[in-house]
Amino acid sequence: MSSLRSDGRKADQLRPITFEANIAPHATGSVLVSFGATRVICAATIEANVPTWMKQQRVPGGWLTAEYSMLPYSTLDRKQRDISRGKIDGRTVEIQRLIGRSLRAVIDLKKLGQNTLWLDCDVLQADGGTRTASITGAYLAARLAVQKLVDAGRLAENPLADSVAAVSVGVFGGQELLDLNYVEDKDAEVDANIVMTGQGRFVEVQSSGEEATFSTEQLTGLIALAQQGLKQLASLQTAFLTKQLLKF
Amino acid sequence: MSSLRSDGRKADQLRPITFEANIAPHATGSVLVSFGATRVICAATIEANVPTWMKQQRVPGGWLTAEYSMLPYSTLDRKQRDISRGKIDGRTVEIQRLIGRSLRAVIDLKKLGQNTLWLDCDVLQADGGTRTASITGAYLAARLAVQKLVDAGRLAENPLADSVAAVSVGVFGGQELLDLNYVEDKDAEVDANIVMTGQGRFVEVQSSGEEATFSTEQLTGLIALAQQGLKQLASLQTAFLTKQLLKF
Amino acid sequence: MSSLRSDGRKADQLRPITFEANIAPHATGSVLVSFGATRVICAATIEANVPTWMKQQRVPGGWLTAEYSMLPYSTLDRKQRDISRGKIDGRTVEIQRLIGRSLRAVIDLKKLGQNTLWLDCDVLQADGGTRTASITGAYLAARLAVQKLVDAGRLAENPLADSVAAVSVGVFGGQELLDLNYVEDKDAEVDANIVMTGQGRFVEVQSSGEEATFSTEQLTGLIALAQQGLKQLASLQTAFLTKQLLKF
Amino acid sequence: MSSLRSDGRKADQLRPITFEANIAPHATGSVLVSFGATRVICAATIEANVPTWMKQQRVPGGWLTAEYSMLPYSTLDRKQRDISRGKIDGRTVEIQRLIGRSLRAVIDLKKLGQNTLWLDCDVLQADGGTRTASITGAYLAARLAVQKLVDAGRLAENPLADSVAAVSVGVFGGQELLDLNYVEDKDAEVDANIVMTGQGRFVEVQSSGEEATFSTEQLTGLIALAQQGLKQLASLQTAFLTKQLLKF
Amino acid sequence: MSSLRSDGRKADQLRPITFEANIAPHATGSVLVSFGATRVICAATIEANVPTWMKQQRVPGGWLTAEYSMLPYSTLDRKQRDISRGKIDGRTVEIQRLIGRSLRAVIDLKKLGQNTLWLDCDVLQADGGTRTASITGAYLAARLAVQKLVDAGRLAENPLADSVAAVSVGVFGGQELLDLNYVEDKDAEVDANIVMTGQGRFVEVQSSGEEATFSTEQLTGLIALAQQGLKQLASLQTAFLTKQLLKF
Amino acid sequence: MSSLRSDGRKADQLRPITFEANIAPHATGSVLVSFGATRVICAATIEANVPTWMKQQRVPGGWLTAEYSMLPYSTLDRKQRDISRGKIDGRTVEIQRLIGRSLRAVIDLKKLGQNTLWLDCDVLQADGGTRTASITGAYLAARLAVQKLVDAGRLAENPLADSVAAVSVGVFGGQELLDLNYVEDKDAEVDANIVMTGQGRFVEVQSSGEEATFSTEQLTGLIALAQQGLKQLASLQTAFLTKQLLKF
Repeated sequence: MSSLRSDGRKADQLRPITFEANIAPHATGSVLVSFGATRVICAATIEANVPTWMKQQRVPGGWLTAEYSMLPYSTLDRKQRDISRGKIDGRTVEIQRLIGRSLRAVIDLKKLGQNTLWLDCDVLQADGGTRTASITGAYLAARLAVQKLVDAGRLAENPLADSVAAVSVGVFGGQELLDLNYVEDKDAEVDANIVMTGQGRFVEVQSSGEEATFSTEQLTGLIALAQQGLKQLASLQTAFLTKQLLKF
Repeated sequence: MSSLRSDGRKADQLRPITFEANIAPHATGSVLVSFGATRVICAATIEANVPTWMKQQRVPGGWLTAEYSMLPYSTLDRKQRDISRGKIDGRTVEIQRLIGRSLRAVIDLKKLGQNTLWLDCDVLQADGGTRTASITGAYLAARLAVQKLVDAGRLAENPLADSVAAVSVGVFGGQELLDLNYVEDKDAEVDANIVMTGQGRFVEVQSSGEEATFSTEQLTGLIALAQQGLKQLASLQTAFLTKQLLKF
Repeated sequence: MSSLRSDGRKADQLRPITFEANIAPHATGSVLVSFGATRVICAATIEANVPTWMKQQRVPGGWLTAEYSMLPYSTLDRKQRDISRGKIDGRTVEIQRLIGRSLRAVIDLKKLGQNTLWLDCDVLQADGGTRTASITGAYLAARLAVQKLVDAGRLAENPLADSVAAVSVGVFGGQELLDLNYVEDKDAEVDANIVMTGQGRFVEVQSSGEEATFSTEQLTGLIALAQQGLKQLASLQTAFLTKQLLKF
Repeated sequence: MSSLRSDGRKADQLRPITFEANIAPHATGSVLVSFGATRVICAATIEANVPTWMKQQRVPGGWLTAEYSMLPYSTLDRKQRDISRGKIDGRTVEIQRLIGRSLRAVIDLKKLGQNTLWLDCDVLQADGGTRTASITGAYLAARLAVQKLVDAGRLAENPLADSVAAVSVGVFGGQELLDLNYVEDKDAEVDANIVMTGQGRFVEVQSSGEEATFSTEQLTGLIALAQQGLKQLASLQTAFLTKQLLKF
Repeated sequence: MSSLRSDGRKADQLRPITFEANIAPHATGSVLVSFGATRVICAATIEANVPTWMKQQRVPGGWLTAEYSMLPYSTLDRKQRDISRGKIDGRTVEIQRLIGRSLRAVIDLKKLGQNTLWLDCDVLQADGGTRTASITGAYLAARLAVQKLVDAGRLAENPLADSVAAVSVGVFGGQELLDLNYVEDKDAEVDANIVMTGQGRFVEVQSSGEEATFSTEQLTGLIALAQQGLKQLASLQTAFLTKQLLKF
Repeated sequence: MSSLRSDGRKADQLRPITFEANIAPHATGSVLVSFGATRVICAATIEANVPTWMKQQRVPGGWLTAEYSMLPYSTLDRKQRDISRGKIDGRTVEIQRLIGRSLRAVIDLKKLGQNTLWLDCDVLQADGGTRTASITGAYLAARLAVQKLVDAGRLAENPLADSVAAVSVGVFGGQELLDLNYVEDKDAEVDANIVMTGQGRFVEVQSSGEEATFSTEQLTGLIALAQQGLKQLASLQTAFLTKQLLKF
């Protein structure tokens, strides 16, 4: 019943997923993640400091925060830099808050010491799903950074309790699709982003109908489709980390 | 099995919901909405103009956009104004985008003419659920505004195809609760906001675990709980509008 | 000699004045003040802190400051928010400085302890005289807030030495008028705002001819007219407070 | 009854007033004005354009606007530039609005053509009364600029219907004083700025008691004192212009 | 006489220089340039528009402009994004103006049509000489972009009249060095950046002594040293382009 | 061989140079410097404080920083203020950084104590060479300020080790010219600014070809021409200071 998609994939098929370690060697950990043509530089940097509000409220442990940006040449029409426009747009704010929440769900901040873990995600090429690629890659960058800190004796143990990954699903032309590319995403009737841990628990479920609505059945179907893709992503993350961490 | 909540409600019980029309008479339509102690001024104003990007891309019809703010005295500790801080915080950006998307899902923008419908939601008193009260009230303000425009001959027909309302649900102390107040919301393990039309179709499902995760069963339970509350809200909206529109 | 005004008032007649207590229950004290169709939310909030410059210069006692804004739906054409425009306009700056000076003239800051009393005035509906309504209402909000703090033992005594109110006067069509509404204010040849204490002493006299000038006689006449209106406002304030403070 | 002031002046005596033409030769007209040690560069520049709102509303004629700033080295402690602080402070906003209103009261904007007359007042040295010196000097700069434009045939006639000047008066140590210097101004109980035309009509009367109040008698006394000083300033302006305009 | 440098180079030796084409495929042309550990993404993007000032002044032809930024993880201590600081720092402004001027010196803007060529340089890893690597790489990105436009028929001919490259030289520990790395640059007594065309003509000579000075002889020596390095860079650029352009 | 310039000067001739002390008496030291029609107010102000980064890094001694601005009436077309545009333009940033570096090259910051020396340069009239006039005048203002501090016992000794001055040179119509005025500067093929100490050592050499290039011979010629002019400027500075410092 399901016809092939414009890029030849089946409805429930991920794009080719690749991870390249150490793209930014000055970061504590870094990964270049690709979901098909979508490519994002994910870098984790440790800073020996915590935000002012934590100090004032004497919250113990550390903090984790994320920043996201699209490089000007990541889109087919050049995208103006945030600093030239004078402000971050609403979409960027939403995405960087989502990345931060997703990673904080799997880290034990108390085990991070008086440190802040910065996760920077800069999109080198955008073809849909930049936020889900960012979360998936940010976890890997964080994991590599944490290992370096543990190996250097700056952390007593790994504060990451689980892995985390994200994928988009949506309804496009009446069909439920996994991992939408830009062409599909732009005209989808329903667009959802699902964040899940390696152990299969949800961190975030966001499903929106821009100028459209959806039924309980559609929601259930999309979530199941996402769960299946997220299992694959978790396996790919594990395989990559196994290889990388042996190298250390 | 479920103990009473701090304000005496049952787990699946809404707070007292009230709507007061015409709180801001210079607006085209306005409502003061209360979800318990949470009170929001919702005002719909028509502007005979559309955004620049619509003109440039020659998109036909009108536009609908929302702005949200918390008045400085809406919280127990005075909240600094956006203009004093110099920028809108991330939470506000997320909320006003959500209100806009929710209302755009039920309006036929082509029937709005070359107009922009502004939905302003200003929180007079905050006790949890300000975004869901805002969406619920913004629909009413929009409906009253539209009626005035239809009656005045400025619109040929009502462009609103359906009603829309929102409610929060969450897991607090292991229990699934409807319509969380501030005390519950602040310490909830899982926090979800569900937006649904009067005909029972979803507009938006957002479920987050801040520093926590949740299972498929919990997600299903929360959504069912929200649906039940949203049916009540839709009835209350209908009753209010019936009374108001007869008055015109 | 004087013809009736557009709203049927005599030249020396105030609009209907009303005060509604507790409009914003999370504030320490609050009042919704109406001068005819002009309606302003006035809220007084206490903050256990003083500005940095007071700490640095070791000034004893507390501080009082005011913020003023027009809600977007307070005017017939929607008014853009300060944060959307990116700055406070000059008129708003003038008004909030005037409100602050007016209230500081009647408070003994040394008796306020190491606290800041914030006075927020948000215009719900604008029909001329929003700054004079704001001052008149801000005093009431401050008085209610102070009483709550005295009753709670957070202040040893009432730091307000006197009451304060304000009214506009102007020359319109050659006639001297009290308490101008928007239509009168917009085209007035001379526009004055007078702030006076309950004991009849001036706090501020501001009289301007925008693209016009005025004589000594006109100035004297306007001031006398304002004084008569301000006596009535002081009586109305006293009556309201007597009733409210008995209720506590 | 009146003791001498700290600088040896009598209570009703102006400081030495001087005007130096052409301080900024690239301006259309310019004057360096001194009220004692207070020195302000006043420059009038014509721009062949009007503000957008005038074009949109098709208001005929031209516009006049003023900007005021204190140079960083004008005060004994260096004053940070507006651009370094990131915003104009409230006092500056008030002053530049006052200068603009004062000059607009004596100009017939319809006779200005489709031009904007900019009046820039930059304080080179501040010793009290910078706003009154600015208004007094800005009129002279405007008059010189207008003459140059008339002589060059760019204006058909002089659009200035009258001259305008300003002076401060105040109550200091219980005594009513004319033209306060910084030491007097800083600790004055009442501080007033009066703007008057050459023909003796008021343009603006502003009298404030910062943390103090004043009686009707004091107000009357201050205004009379200011009127006497303003007559002298008008004579000095006339003498200066007579000499300058003959030179053209 | 010259001892080896910390990284083993001779005083007049460049670091290993590499160019990798097509690092950002959505750009019209792009190169990842490395000067040793310094790595910069250089992307050239064409926009079918020119700046407003060119339209207003009816300047014929196109425009070329550059933007430069350091990615947050490019430095050993994380560098805050411009948008988080709220402004571009002075060093960044200087660098992006230098890149723009350098490229404009070798392009015939009249041959660019009504287009803007954007040159974005984002530093992935910083180890000294980021501005010289940016200029050297930006030329290559521009050349590849221009070729694509010529091949696609969007440009009639190549508007680049010559190539351009840049290198740093400096006095460090009394010795004149070519192509300083971060450790050398940070403590150099004199620091110079020289921009030269492929035909050996200067575009820009900037030599500064921060808290130091230099003699005519030192200036002459540094310039000669730079010229020698710039000849090598020009050869490397030619070799790279020959290979790339054959591939098209 | 060289024809006369538009203002009658020879190719290697400076414009008339004048210095007027004490233009801004509230500054610690101040000079009005003229290079022909270019006039700049240079003021040096001492502040008993150092920047935060110096305190944090415990750098001993003081700091010197410069700010530059063009007054709105300094140009033939009125120049908008930085604060009205909302940001400092790139050219201003470059110039104030250059002034700061130039002065820091001749001062021993350790001898400045825990103080910041602010150098403010405000252009009263612009006719080319405003940055070189600023540097030349800023040195004089700094020297006068330092003398006042030494005389008052606030500094133990003069921290200025040498004098510093600057001049522009350029290629205009194929001819190498000294001290370009606006007409020459605007259309120069090559434009250089050279900063040199009184002892003849370079502080900064900046030579740019905007949309043009230059040869080694031209660079050598321009530098020699500048050196000759800078010797004259150093003599004029010495003569001025000798006269001023005797007056103290």
